[in-house]
Amino acid sequence: TELGHGTFIRGLETTCTYDPENEEFILNSPTLTSYKWWPGGLGHSCNYAIVLAQLYTQGIRCGIHPFIVQLRDSETWMPMPGIKIGEIGSKMGMNSVNNGYLAFNNVRLPRMQMLMKNAKVHKDGTYEKSPNEKLTYSTMILTRVLIVKSLVTSFLKQSATIAVRYSAIRRQSELKSGEREPQILDYQTQQYKLFPVIASSLVYVCAAKWLWDKFSAVTSKLERVDLDQLPELHAMACCLKAVGTADASISVTSCRLACGGHGYMNCSNFPNIYSLITATETYEGENTVLLLQTARFLIKSYETIQMGNNVSTLEMMYLENYNSLKQFPWKTTLDCMTNAFFQVAGSKIDDCYFTIKRLIDSGMAQEDAWNRTSIKLTQASEAHCRAFVISTYIKTLKTNQFSPELMDVLTQLGELICAQWILCRVGDFLQHSNLKPINVHSIQCLLEDSLERIRPNAVGLVDSFDIPDEVLDSALGAYDGNVYERLLAEANKSPLNKEPVNRSFELYIKPFLKSNV
Amino acid sequence: TELGHGTFIRGLETTCTYDPENEEFILNSPTLTSYKWWPGGLGHSCNYAIVLAQLYTQGIRCGIHPFIVQLRDSETWMPMPGIKIGEIGSKMGMNSVNNGYLAFNNVRLPRMQMLMKNAKVHKDGTYEKSPNEKLTYSTMILTRVLIVKSLVTSFLKQSATIAVRYSAIRRQSELKSGEREPQILDYQTQQYKLFPVIASSLVYVCAAKWLWDKFSAVTSKLERVDLDQLPELHAMACCLKAVGTADASISVTSCRLACGGHGYMNCSNFPNIYSLITATETYEGENTVLLLQTARFLIKSYETIQMGNNVSTLEMMYLENYNSLKQFPWKTTLDCMTNAFFQVAGSKIDDCYFTIKRLIDSGMAQEDAWNRTSIKLTQASEAHCRAFVISTYIKTLKTNQFSPELMDVLTQLGELICAQWILCRVGDFLQHSNLKPINVHSIQCLLEDSLERIRPNAVGLVDSFDIPDEVLDSALGAYDGNVYERLLAEANKSPLNKEPVNRSFELYIKPFLKSNV
Ligand SMILES: Cc1cc2nc3c(=O)[nH]c(=O)nc-3n(C[C@H](O)[C@H](O)[C@H](O)COP(=O)(O)OP(=O)(O)OC[C@H]3O[C@@H](n4cnc5c(N)ncnc54)[C@H](O)[C@@H]3O)c2cc1C
Ligand SMILES: Cc1cc2nc3c(=O)[nH]c(=O)nc-3n(C[C@H](O)[C@H](O)[C@H](O)COP(=O)(O)OP(=O)(O)OC[C@H]3O[C@@H](n4cnc5c(N)ncnc54)[C@H](O)[C@@H]3O)c2cc1C
Repeated sequence: TELGHGTFIRGLETTCTYDPENEEFILNSPTLTSYKWWPGGLGHSCNYAIVLAQLYTQGIRCGIHPFIVQLRDSETWMPMPGIKIGEIGSKMGMNSVNNGYLAFNNVRLPRMQMLMKNAKVHKDGTYEKSPNEKLTYSTMILTRVLIVKSLVTSFLKQSATIAVRYSAIRRQSELKSGEREPQILDYQTQQYKLFPVIASSLVYVCAAKWLWDKFSAVTSKLERVDLDQLPELHAMACCLKAVGTADASISVTSCRLACGGHGYMNCSNFPNIYSLITATETYEGENTVLLLQTARFLIKSYETIQMGNNVSTLEMMYLENYNSLKQFPWKTTLDCMTNAFFQVAGSKIDDCYFTIKRLIDSGMAQEDAWNRTSIKLTQASEAHCRAFVISTYIKTLKTNQFSPELMDVLTQLGELICAQWILCRVGDFLQHSNLKPINVHSIQCLLEDSLERIRPNAVGLVDSFDIPDEVLDSALGAYDGNVYERLLAEANKSPLNKEPVNRSFELYIKPFLKSNV
Repeated sequence: TELGHGTFIRGLETTCTYDPENEEFILNSPTLTSYKWWPGGLGHSCNYAIVLAQLYTQGIRCGIHPFIVQLRDSETWMPMPGIKIGEIGSKMGMNSVNNGYLAFNNVRLPRMQMLMKNAKVHKDGTYEKSPNEKLTYSTMILTRVLIVKSLVTSFLKQSATIAVRYSAIRRQSELKSGEREPQILDYQTQQYKLFPVIASSLVYVCAAKWLWDKFSAVTSKLERVDLDQLPELHAMACCLKAVGTADASISVTSCRLACGGHGYMNCSNFPNIYSLITATETYEGENTVLLLQTARFLIKSYETIQMGNNVSTLEMMYLENYNSLKQFPWKTTLDCMTNAFFQVAGSKIDDCYFTIKRLIDSGMAQEDAWNRTSIKLTQASEAHCRAFVISTYIKTLKTNQFSPELMDVLTQLGELICAQWILCRVGDFLQHSNLKPINVHSIQCLLEDSLERIRPNAVGLVDSFDIPDEVLDSALGAYDGNVYERLLAEANKSPLNKEPVNRSFELYIKPFLKSNV
């Protein structure tokens, strides 16, 4: 990333010009916006970096290539000549990451410091293209896979654990006059804030497992990635990263707010968790941009079908038959609801496909037609993603051996998340699936019933996530439930509480009180 | 607020017991959860506080009453005997507010330190009730009115200003191959993130004005508040505070994310703005609790109508006639859309009213029936609030003289926010209003068209908010648009950038590199 370019890598401005006379490259930062900006650890700790720059050789611009560059002296750690370097300043969170900036002024590199596994620059300056440009894809995909697999699921679990445990300890308000104040976990609205987060963490665990397996399969042939399957893998990694991180950010916030005032304390750990999860909405591909990438794949697949051909994979097959599902009468069952998700996704992709076609037919340029449809395109990608996530969870229930007791609970959680996701966008389902207005009531009932059925297992469920207190790092969420003792202990750690009278009294308050203002 | 009680004031545990012998009160904190917790400024700066405590006199518990208590010595600022005091520790934001904690150990107060304007304790310990318990209401309402009037609207305006200005400077990606990178403000998805925030800030300005005028009218009779109108004022302040702060929090986040990576920097000011606005979702009445208070008023009003009586005010009158509006054919006009908001609100209140009734009829206790309906009740309050906000804005357009040019723009913003609010919950409108599935398309078109029509005026609109750079305090949002220069200047202010080599090198990195690990 540079100051001026994150999303659009091709637009990076740092230049690297080959000088055949000395067999060296010369790195430069021609503009302020070409400053490298954001790389983690760059500020003060690294002494080497792999730098992406626009390669120029023999007077020709050859695109972005990687170079290894020494940034600091190995003995003194002083910046090397021609290198301007520092950290980018304080951030919403992740302040220990030491994100840095970096600018080059005629920094010379021996030719061999270009990473030449793929593309090459020969001694005389001849440029040799990479045999396959798509190869660089796979590391970008891996990071997105890991965001879903590790960050989305753990922050969902951590937040649910903290808020559910606290809600079992916290008692507030009267439910019935004269009775003891209830655990706030008994309020229906509170259950509605928290139990879907428990369910989310499980459905994303299943989706992440699929994604991880798919990634491993596609890239298993060591050097040779399976190029046929790359586009779908890429599309799924994009939308799962985008929808997963967005859902997780909202869930973390919901859990924090469910803890009332104490959720706002840093010692609840919610502020920190939020700053970490919301960062993933932006880094490794900004979410809107990613949804549009998925959309591109979906529209292409739909076009394939419109042309009378078949799509290649199981996961995309619904695009061929979603319409026929609309004839079945609605039942509020997991299978029927799953089918409805596919109907919504298919219809939204269809709508986008024909909207773009209509705009182009009416004389609009292809790119403008795309932009003019882009709100709907992001929504189609999201719908596709949700259909995939729900169906993967339901498939997991069907293809695994669970005890009847466990199966009950996992089914309740599946019903809850289906009901919640449908009700949040019930207009889509009324327009594009076999759901009829008269059936909506039954989904609302399913939602309310599953909350009630999950209630007795709620604390057990978050305990089963088995997150150590040291990881939770939360006064509200510790296993022993000693919430109030911990809040006071944390308060007493404040440096401001070291002396009974803070020095601000002598410095400011007293002079002010004694003055004649 | 105490450690154990924020929402439920009646549950406060601090005790104040009258001792007629010495004509003194004795203050005590009988439990850990009875510690006062959260009051702003309490930690180290105040020397007096008004303390709410459970009054006991002549062996009888008389409820919560206010007492004035000296906390710190006026000369030395040392805590007074029997007083334990400090700050509560670091928070998500507002760290300069010095929120404090406070506990009492047999603190004695002369009898006259009870604030006895309303209730009284006589010398001999006889308790005299307040002539009207509702009088204390009005300050609580005032704070909520001010949150809507000052905080919600200004944070919406500030965020919109920063993000719209940045989006006019920021160029990213290719729209058309070979052309210059577009301003990101030209992406439809970007407009969708930002322009509704401009529109929101205006609709909430109008709603806040109504609320402020209403508050002034109801409380104008100095001592004597107009008790008839108090319940509606209270209900409207509750839902406007709840929905307004929730909307503003989401909008601030949307604006931050729309600025990509740089929105995550503290120097964008988004992290700070977010921490301030999300706090308002909790303090001065937790949002869910407030929505349930509004719901109580709505259900009561609906009951009044069911009993064949009329409701008293203009704003509630729709409950009498919303059903008759359902017969009109849909038109995608401001008037028709406004009516649809009322139909949705009315139908949701009706649904709640009869759900509760049915549950009670089936043998459930009233309180359980209420709790079992509370998700729907909060949604009914929200629907009521949105109908009110939209209709107030439309009324403002109709009853004021604007130039035709200004009226055009204000109408576009009204159409945008109507379309967006309807589309976000289009299921409600399909179920409960005269909107038919076939009409949804026209609302989506209205949304997309208004984005396009607002685009040329977007920067002008945020400039018209006229927020000085010093208030915006944002590297991304300054009037001059020198975004990248400011980002670099802010980075160079970082204390870590003072020396070219940070001391962590000598302390940690060098020893590690030289070791034989
Ligand atoms: C915490 C954090 C850590 C980071 N760590 C690193 C790191 O270690 N190394 C590194 O190199 N970088 C890092 N980054 C930078 C990160 O990769 C970029 O911020 C990210 O790729 C987004 O790019 P951007 O900031 O240019 O956003 P922009 O592209 O400027 O996005 C701004 C807005 O424009 C919109 N937009 C842009 N292009 C399009 C389009 N084609 N169509 C529609 N809308 C569009 C976006 O949707 C968004 O709303 C980090 C960022 C953060 C926040
Ligand atoms: C930044 C900040 C500043 C503050 N400043 C002050 C101050 O200056 N002075 C002061 O006295 N206080 C202050 N407070 C405290 C604040 O007033 C309380 O946090 C607030 O009233 C919410 O109460 P609570 O924390 O007890 O939440 P709780 O009531 O514990 O809420 C936790 C959860 O329980 C749910 N819940 C509670 N009761 C019900 C019910 N009856 N029905 C359904 N759900 C329910 C809520 O919806 C929420 O999800 C401040 C708080 C913050 C965050």
